[in-house]
Amino acid sequence: MNSFLITGAITAAIIIYITFKVLDHSPGNKQTNKLSNIIQKGARSFLFQEYKVFFPVVIGLSLLFSLIISWKAGVALLIGSFLSTLAGFFGMTIATKSNARTTWAATKGIGEALKVSFSGGAIMGLTVSTLGIVGLAVIYRITNEIETISYYALGASLVALFARVGGGIYTKAADVGADIVGKTEANLPEDDPRNPAVIADNVGDNVGDVAGMGADLYESYVGSIFSALALGIYYFGEKGFNTVIFVVISGLISSVIGIFFTLFNAAKTQNPANTLRTGTFVASILTLAAVFFYSILKSWIEIFIVILLGIIVGVTIGLVTEYYTSGRKIKKLAKSAVMGPANILISGTALGMASTFAVTLLISLAVILSYKFLGLFGVALAGVGMLSTIGISLSVDAYGPIADNAGGIAQMAGLDPKVREITDALDAVGNTTAAMGKGFAIGSAALTALALFANFSNLSGIKSISPGDPYLFLGALIGGMLPFFFSALTMNAVGNAANDMVNEIRRQLKEIPGILTGEGTPDYEKCIQIATKGALKRMVLPALLAIISPIAIYLFFTAVGIAGLLIGTTVSGVMLAIFMANSGGAWDNAKKYVEEGHFGGKGSFAHKATVVGDTVGDPFKDTAGPSINILIKLMAITSIVLITIVRR
Amino acid sequence: MNSFLITGAITAAIIIYITFKVLDHSPGNKQTNKLSNIIQKGARSFLFQEYKVFFPVVIGLSLLFSLIISWKAGVALLIGSFLSTLAGFFGMTIATKSNARTTWAATKGIGEALKVSFSGGAIMGLTVSTLGIVGLAVIYRITNEIETISYYALGASLVALFARVGGGIYTKAADVGADIVGKTEANLPEDDPRNPAVIADNVGDNVGDVAGMGADLYESYVGSIFSALALGIYYFGEKGFNTVIFVVISGLISSVIGIFFTLFNAAKTQNPANTLRTGTFVASILTLAAVFFYSILKSWIEIFIVILLGIIVGVTIGLVTEYYTSGRKIKKLAKSAVMGPANILISGTALGMASTFAVTLLISLAVILSYKFLGLFGVALAGVGMLSTIGISLSVDAYGPIADNAGGIAQMAGLDPKVREITDALDAVGNTTAAMGKGFAIGSAALTALALFANFSNLSGIKSISPGDPYLFLGALIGGMLPFFFSALTMNAVGNAANDMVNEIRRQLKEIPGILTGEGTPDYEKCIQIATKGALKRMVLPALLAIISPIAIYLFFTAVGIAGLLIGTTVSGVMLAIFMANSGGAWDNAKKYVEEGHFGGKGSFAHKATVVGDTVGDPFKDTAGPSINILIKLMAITSIVLITIVRR
Repeated sequence: MNSFLITGAITAAIIIYITFKVLDHSPGNKQTNKLSNIIQKGARSFLFQEYKVFFPVVIGLSLLFSLIISWKAGVALLIGSFLSTLAGFFGMTIATKSNARTTWAATKGIGEALKVSFSGGAIMGLTVSTLGIVGLAVIYRITNEIETISYYALGASLVALFARVGGGIYTKAADVGADIVGKTEANLPEDDPRNPAVIADNVGDNVGDVAGMGADLYESYVGSIFSALALGIYYFGEKGFNTVIFVVISGLISSVIGIFFTLFNAAKTQNPANTLRTGTFVASILTLAAVFFYSILKSWIEIFIVILLGIIVGVTIGLVTEYYTSGRKIKKLAKSAVMGPANILISGTALGMASTFAVTLLISLAVILSYKFLGLFGVALAGVGMLSTIGISLSVDAYGPIADNAGGIAQMAGLDPKVREITDALDAVGNTTAAMGKGFAIGSAALTALALFANFSNLSGIKSISPGDPYLFLGALIGGMLPFFFSALTMNAVGNAANDMVNEIRRQLKEIPGILTGEGTPDYEKCIQIATKGALKRMVLPALLAIISPIAIYLFFTAVGIAGLLIGTTVSGVMLAIFMANSGGAWDNAKKYVEEGHFGGKGSFAHKATVVGDTVGDPFKDTAGPSINILIKLMAITSIVLITIVRR
Repeated sequence: MNSFLITGAITAAIIIYITFKVLDHSPGNKQTNKLSNIIQKGARSFLFQEYKVFFPVVIGLSLLFSLIISWKAGVALLIGSFLSTLAGFFGMTIATKSNARTTWAATKGIGEALKVSFSGGAIMGLTVSTLGIVGLAVIYRITNEIETISYYALGASLVALFARVGGGIYTKAADVGADIVGKTEANLPEDDPRNPAVIADNVGDNVGDVAGMGADLYESYVGSIFSALALGIYYFGEKGFNTVIFVVISGLISSVIGIFFTLFNAAKTQNPANTLRTGTFVASILTLAAVFFYSILKSWIEIFIVILLGIIVGVTIGLVTEYYTSGRKIKKLAKSAVMGPANILISGTALGMASTFAVTLLISLAVILSYKFLGLFGVALAGVGMLSTIGISLSVDAYGPIADNAGGIAQMAGLDPKVREITDALDAVGNTTAAMGKGFAIGSAALTALALFANFSNLSGIKSISPGDPYLFLGALIGGMLPFFFSALTMNAVGNAANDMVNEIRRQLKEIPGILTGEGTPDYEKCIQIATKGALKRMVLPALLAIISPIAIYLFFTAVGIAGLLIGTTVSGVMLAIFMANSGGAWDNAKKYVEEGHFGGKGSFAHKATVVGDTVGDPFKDTAGPSINILIKLMAITSIVLITIVRR
């Protein structure tokens, strides 16, 4: 674990270096700088209020665990939540500082703009991985117990759920609200400063897509490492434990190299998609090379095979995602829009549901092969393999919203349209990489869920389940229901918050004179407040659901019921998450395809139908879908903690 | 089992009596009679072509089973498929003879119209239950083996899946196609004879909602009785076996009494909803009374409790369905349409997903309590209890499409608008009862699936499963994916067939002169052919999926994998079915609510948004959703047959 601390110290230094490099860039003229500051202020104010909601929960739980288990458990929970929060906060702060700098860099060319926005993303990527392993190492140093790490993971998961749900509601309420009134009713273009919700929309990108995603991947990373460490010790002792540490460190160092490689190439690139892909590729190859030598050295070639498998399956899931959300599939989907909104909705729903087939088979393949080679430890290790280069893949993910924001600032500040063209090009690349990132997230969530389930089984003391035991079946039935109910709650939250937003925008357009001619200034602040309040109020119930259900199931249906619960939630959750991510992504891209001039282009009947599809897809892909991944893991970790408590 | 034959003989006589009574009514004037004949011809022609597709499969399987198992298995399969087909065919023939008779009766008042349409439905209800138990008894008499009944159930399930999927694609392709061009583009009212797809639409009601539903409930009935008989013998010997028979017979005789009670009251009623509800209530109370005396006589009060539980939970699921698809919920949903189609789609999706919560808890309650009292046999018996009064509840279900058709005929024949008002009132009642019927179908499917799963476990010889066994988890993952993939296939089938239909209608409107002024006659036949071809071509792949998956899973993941597969399919299938049924029902009713004059009424912006919702909901609630219930059970029965074969 000392090696985690040493690696963390090095990467921390690198984070500081890149941060100073980013801040060295000019935030542009007075106008862009001011817009960036407003966005930053709005985003921070949301996060602070979010903390006020969930920190009492975290502190309460921490005290509870300190009393009934040990002070170590309480501290681990606190550290997990604190570091996850810190990663999200720091990453988002830098992102909001990078946006105007990207806008200004775009006046010099696409290469410069890519460099700044990717640097901003890289800080998030490296911060998440660095804090993730440092926290783990610190707790292990203090307690010398692997079990205590489950409380650390629980803290991270809790924060992740709140951040994803809260941020997801915020960003989509603002987005949908701004679109419905601004674009559809008042015919304003995207990011027009006359739209009162325009700043809230840009704030949303930061609190949802940056801070929310950061906390999300923090918990995925920590959860997968924890489950692999625990199964490694359980089945292979010290040897298994050290292997996980080696894989994690190789992945992180390779990510750093990949990031510098990308930054080096960025300045002179004309093809940002290619540059980003090459950087990620370099990181993966270096990780594989390191693991290969390790395997040879330890005469344990299965390790290499499993990691290779995890990476290949992860990439293939990404490619499947790309297949369903681009190219031929999108053309066909866009074509169905010609018949009207109902048709593109039916076709898009079917498309997302159909995509579960290939993804499920790929996940199954990863599980079955990794299990053949290394048993349940192999399954967990394949999950770690998928996430090992999170340092760079999260950088690529986080750069998208920065470029998106940069475009918004360019538009609002009234810069040369060429600037916007550059940021749009970067944003489009970001959308594709984000879709692939979601594929990785789902794949690793499924593997980690199985690994956590295996940990739960080991801890629960259940040696065998009679297949006719109705508790297993009932647990699975209730577990399978939860992702549906959870999605309903989050989507309703978006719908209701968006309604509040729509009413407010309509009110402003009516009551503030000269707002549409540009003579009056909209009350941006009010829209930010509405999105903030709407998100905070509505994130609590879904989050509680994840914590309370395993406890309730245990009380009624014992540990066998929990086993069923976890199977049910994972199964229906993974399917819903794939369906929602891919339907949403496909509708988004179908709209863009029509906007490029196909089937009548902007303003046509087909375009209006695709806008409906895109609006429906927004809460699917950016609120409900990604939150389900966390729900699955949070429930698994809650179950693990619960079973260790009741079996003491 | 002799009592099944005796009861069957009595109910067969009653069916003949009611049939003659229906045929005694006048089919109206030349025009209504002609329309009825065209619809009947179209529906029959579809069924005959459907048989040509699936009978080779059935006969092939029957020969295969005769060779590798015994001639008895082959014969049982044949009888199951033949009787299910016969029930659907006969019921549909009577339905198509009752439609014009209902139209004509409606000229005399709502009571007369209710009497005729309900008689038509009652013939379907009684035929399904009569043939269901007679077939069972015949096979048991021939073979004296309970196992052979699984082949009978397999035959019924196979036919049900083909009939539901094929009929569901047909009816929605015609409906959606007719709506998109007829209503939206050409502004024709519903059932306007100028719409070329109008006859196909009415044929669709018969092949989908009547024949499809008949085959569906035939398999539910047979499946639940089979699983209860098998578990009854396994756990309680002769005593358990006889109890199931008693419950089934009580339910059927009570249904007959309830039907006559309803017919007696129908003539003078002004409140059809009330009359139907009272009839169903009478049947349930009589069944309960009979079972109560039986329980006292045999000193086995648990039987009564379990049946009572099944009926109460079934009714409550129906009420939950009603709650989510009417009243306050619908007002709120319709209100969201004011913001546009995207909002009502998001809200409606969330509504359907939220409804899984209460339904799942109710199903869990039924399982856990019935298990407490009578073990797994109790679970199966509760399922039988839910379906015991299928004789009357299917009558109520089947009367809806007859009233719907009667309205279409009134419109097309240009009768007095008052006639249409009466049939519309009957149709509206039918929609509510259909929604409640779907609730029952889902509840009983879940219980039967668990009972079949228990049978599978007993037969498989698996004594216990290690919770860490990845085969269980993988089976569940793949099983959970299948309902999603299956829904994608069926929805795409509807979408593609509807596209063909849209193109054909557009072509006719353009090429046939005077079609919109009523001077030219549309080519109805062509539209019927397109719907027929579209449905037949596209029903094969989804049906094959259900049969092949258990076999594939067994080869890769052994019997433990199948256990996981069945859990996964049931869990995600039940949730998807509930979600789709209730979202679809809610959108349908929201549209009707707006059409009553709320939020701007017909033609308003809100109305257009609700039409989009309704169109999306159509394949949800009438194609994909109901087919999933059969998918779940067909996979379970296939698994049972498979495991008995491989373990011989």
